[in-house]
Amino acid sequence: MSEPATAQRARRTAFFVSGGTGITAEALGHSLLSQFGDIDFEQVALPYVQTDEDARDALNRVDRAARQDEQLPIVFSTLVNHTHREILADCNALVLDMFAVFLDPLEQELGVRSSHKAGQSHAIRDEEAYRIRIDAIHFALDNDDGARTRHYEKADIILTGVSRSGKTPTSLYLALQFGLYAANYPLTDDDFDDLDLPEELKPYREKLFGLMIDSERLAAIRNERRANSRYASEQQCEMELRTLEGLYNRYNIPCLDVTDLSIEEISTRILAKTGLQRRLQ
Amino acid sequence: MSEPATAQRARRTAFFVSGGTGITAEALGHSLLSQFGDIDFEQVALPYVQTDEDARDALNRVDRAARQDEQLPIVFSTLVNHTHREILADCNALVLDMFAVFLDPLEQELGVRSSHKAGQSHAIRDEEAYRIRIDAIHFALDNDDGARTRHYEKADIILTGVSRSGKTPTSLYLALQFGLYAANYPLTDDDFDDLDLPEELKPYREKLFGLMIDSERLAAIRNERRANSRYASEQQCEMELRTLEGLYNRYNIPCLDVTDLSIEEISTRILAKTGLQRRLQ
Repeated sequence: MSEPATAQRARRTAFFVSGGTGITAEALGHSLLSQFGDIDFEQVALPYVQTDEDARDALNRVDRAARQDEQLPIVFSTLVNHTHREILADCNALVLDMFAVFLDPLEQELGVRSSHKAGQSHAIRDEEAYRIRIDAIHFALDNDDGARTRHYEKADIILTGVSRSGKTPTSLYLALQFGLYAANYPLTDDDFDDLDLPEELKPYREKLFGLMIDSERLAAIRNERRANSRYASEQQCEMELRTLEGLYNRYNIPCLDVTDLSIEEISTRILAKTGLQRRLQ
Repeated sequence: MSEPATAQRARRTAFFVSGGTGITAEALGHSLLSQFGDIDFEQVALPYVQTDEDARDALNRVDRAARQDEQLPIVFSTLVNHTHREILADCNALVLDMFAVFLDPLEQELGVRSSHKAGQSHAIRDEEAYRIRIDAIHFALDNDDGARTRHYEKADIILTGVSRSGKTPTSLYLALQFGLYAANYPLTDDDFDDLDLPEELKPYREKLFGLMIDSERLAAIRNERRANSRYASEQQCEMELRTLEGLYNRYNIPCLDVTDLSIEEISTRILAKTGLQRRLQ
């Protein structure tokens, strides 16, 4: 109703419907929708559909969008409950139902019936996994930005790189998603004076992983923080990065150019490059 | 080869094969496998399959597992490249191919061909989204554990709760996944003396969200940190939690019992309860 009557552009609404967090439905949906880059989707998450009434509410939301858009919405569903799936199936949309498609062949191959319980994959399954995860997050926080180096014995990996190359978000992601103990240590101007690794890092050379970044991109990021400073100048950025590259080479530190990468890509590529085993599946 | 010849228990290997990070394939796979709680799966991620050779390597890994397990592996694939999918299709496994199943109906409904490019969903799509995310992470770090309160104007949400109720991991997850500016403020013994909210929080009452936790569980978590301390005693935990509940009620602060919830569940339930709009899709 709030749409202006003159709005002509075709609009599509995509729903992610789930009995739990909706994370799987969203991952699946985003993956598929990203294959259609030219279409703008209005994205709506409908998690925690846990009662018949919730399912009917979801159905109504979808049908309302169908009327407003005058186009069929796309519904990505990971509902497992039979009744809820049947209720939703009546909606006026293209429903892509993950369980309908994949559960049958899996049951046949595995020779057992599935539990048909929702929200299994992002729920606490065991206390041990939860503990590892929380521990890893606190480790990343305590060992962020070279704050201290005395716990490096316990680190699975120590990220190094210049200021603003993505060390902190990557450390946190490695902790949250994979339960890894990730420290990070910034290499600054001071470290570059003698063109050598800081002494604190030398005992842990085999845990080091270097982040690299394009100098123009780095300058742009730094300019947002401190416009027109020496710190943000292209010359300074280039000098730091060239020195860094020399250090990585000299000490044979594996490294990755993160310029065009998301945090997820940086993290998963680090795992692939180092062969580091995650502590959480 | 390293398996003892006497090992009789049926083993299953599950592969997550992707041209990108593999995050979608894993989310899909974990969701489906969690429906078969009685079976132990050896889980293997095979991300960044980007060349024909990578695809043949993946095929060989799968076939080797099939021989070793003497059971068909399960392969969850989000490969989009046609050639790579054809190579993998020859493997000796149950292949659940997300794109094969869902892309056709989507193309038909949307009336366009998809781009068939891998790694679209967890790649940087625009600089703006990347900036929001990094900003939100730094906000969560700077405003962790009540470190400062002067930036609360900018906060989307301020989590409160007793020590060790999950405030920090939840703040970080909200930042990483949803780009939300999440601060957190611990309510401690000192705050409970006058049975009132700390003065710093009062101007931001409508941003507060309370975490609650079962007192036995809290005592167990705290005992791991400081065994047999007053801090970890059940009596102390109960007192803190009862006082807290009173405060939440008095100030009408929405709250959530996080006792049996994962970080993902806590975060997505907070969004559902508060109606807070994410800054990232």
